[in-house]
Amino acid sequence: MNENYIYKLVKQKFHKKNKAFINGIGDDAAIWKFGKKQIAISCDSHIDGIHFSEKFMKPEEISYRAVSVALSDLAAMGASPLFYTNSLNLKKGFSSKKIKKIFDGFHQASKDYKIELVGGNIVTSKFFSLDITVVGEVKSNYIPRGSTSGETVYVSGNIGSANAGLRLLKRKEIIKDENYKELLNSYKRPKPKIGISKILSSTGLISSMIDITDGLYLDLKRLIKFKNNKLGATIDWNKIPKLHSLNLFFTPRMIPKIVLEGGDDFELLFTIKKGFDDKFQRISKLKKINVFPIGKINNSGVIYIDIDGNKKKIKEGGYIHKL
Amino acid sequence: MNENYIYKLVKQKFHKKNKAFINGIGDDAAIWKFGKKQIAISCDSHIDGIHFSEKFMKPEEISYRAVSVALSDLAAMGASPLFYTNSLNLKKGFSSKKIKKIFDGFHQASKDYKIELVGGNIVTSKFFSLDITVVGEVKSNYIPRGSTSGETVYVSGNIGSANAGLRLLKRKEIIKDENYKELLNSYKRPKPKIGISKILSSTGLISSMIDITDGLYLDLKRLIKFKNNKLGATIDWNKIPKLHSLNLFFTPRMIPKIVLEGGDDFELLFTIKKGFDDKFQRISKLKKINVFPIGKINNSGVIYIDIDGNKKKIKEGGYIHKL
Repeated sequence: MNENYIYKLVKQKFHKKNKAFINGIGDDAAIWKFGKKQIAISCDSHIDGIHFSEKFMKPEEISYRAVSVALSDLAAMGASPLFYTNSLNLKKGFSSKKIKKIFDGFHQASKDYKIELVGGNIVTSKFFSLDITVVGEVKSNYIPRGSTSGETVYVSGNIGSANAGLRLLKRKEIIKDENYKELLNSYKRPKPKIGISKILSSTGLISSMIDITDGLYLDLKRLIKFKNNKLGATIDWNKIPKLHSLNLFFTPRMIPKIVLEGGDDFELLFTIKKGFDDKFQRISKLKKINVFPIGKINNSGVIYIDIDGNKKKIKEGGYIHKL
Repeated sequence: MNENYIYKLVKQKFHKKNKAFINGIGDDAAIWKFGKKQIAISCDSHIDGIHFSEKFMKPEEISYRAVSVALSDLAAMGASPLFYTNSLNLKKGFSSKKIKKIFDGFHQASKDYKIELVGGNIVTSKFFSLDITVVGEVKSNYIPRGSTSGETVYVSGNIGSANAGLRLLKRKEIIKDENYKELLNSYKRPKPKIGISKILSSTGLISSMIDITDGLYLDLKRLIKFKNNKLGATIDWNKIPKLHSLNLFFTPRMIPKIVLEGGDDFELLFTIKKGFDDKFQRISKLKKINVFPIGKINNSGVIYIDIDGNKKKIKEGGYIHKL
């Protein structure tokens, strides 16, 4: 099955018919005008063995993470979370204790993110999966995908940590080390960038934004090619923020793969309107948010990575969720 | 797993914290105040082998039906549909043609119900399932669950037809007969009662409402016991509208089981404010909607069925979705 095929199929078939549907299909969340307000809605599914694994995550971690991941789509639009629904497939034989733990995770997420669980749907079947739909409000303007040549590309934090954590989880070693724990938690407890997103949105300087779910390469491609397929970019390897601890657990050959193709970081990836980089960086300092310029959009049609002056095309491929 | 256990768990854990969340957990859809407007949101999952079967339904019928079923929850609240999202698990090996057919069904549903598909999520995995989240608007007042003793119980149409259709589908016979086809279609193409729901809502006379998904008995129990566990009801068997063709394909012993316990009809089940039955029935005639009084709410705590003057307790049990 080809994701692109389906995307094209949907784009073709479903022409935006209602004026209230502001952005159209294909963004991180749909924006709907409702009276004088705008709501953002997004759904996300999490399947055991594909998006998480019961083998190395506790039930409460799984449900908590599912809400975090769904909220990241709202952050990518510059929207503030309001509420969510959960649709659960619970495996036959799940104990009451386990089910309680799953709801403990939802409860903690509701508390931490100040969003209300308003409803759901529960089925017992042969597999364990969670489907989360989040609804938020766009208070200023929503931030779409689609960049312009000449703009600077930024990320909101370390890239590759979550994928490194996932790889370590699969090794099933027990290492008592703070660096090790930090990487594991990057995968197990991703933090949706809601706070930073609100500040970014309020600057009025962001031209496009996406959250990194499927890896820096793939999501950068989605971000810049949304409006114009002829755009490309050059990313400076040394400018990509990454944890030094990657070097402790992975070979130098492996690290670019983890950083460029590894997903699940849920950091924001965005571009700034041309000519406003200085202003944006001043505001970022003032507001005490971390933002990292990592490259430039160009008209090459290709995404290059520049490693110590050595410019290479990033290989096609990228991240496929599979455990 | 016990549905009641989970419901109690959620009710206990998730106290309504935000004033905007009007009705609280446990209704057909959640109602959220958004500026001066109210939105209704509900999610529904459909799993191959539980809620539908690829063995006797075409891909386009499956997706169309999933949207219809989700919309029925909005109808049960008196809400008008606005838009929906779909989260799909497609089985490995599904052909492009099949995927196209699935989207044909969504497209037809979008057209027929005038609701926009605003986004979704697609995963390839080991099973086929669809998760639909619908959002609607409550234009007058939303209609909750929870009846009062002395009120009359109504349904909006024939009961048992869908379950009869499902049973016939499983027999896998081919019978060229209009009655047979009508029963099959009752299961395959349920019609959410959106039009009737709007009229019911506009009368201001409906005290409580639910849609029949899991059978007349089980949903009546949910409707009347929502606020007060001590309520009961007596239903008059002869007043329940049902297709005569049930007698052509099922034994007299089977029919009460189909009508009282069979789900998937998606008819509305509701009560009228005490003393307003005459007024309500006058309005119904004027507006040309079919409504059928089938019994009365009482304080017995028990649901009785009266068959030709013979009053019997309806057996616990009811409908479990399984194919």
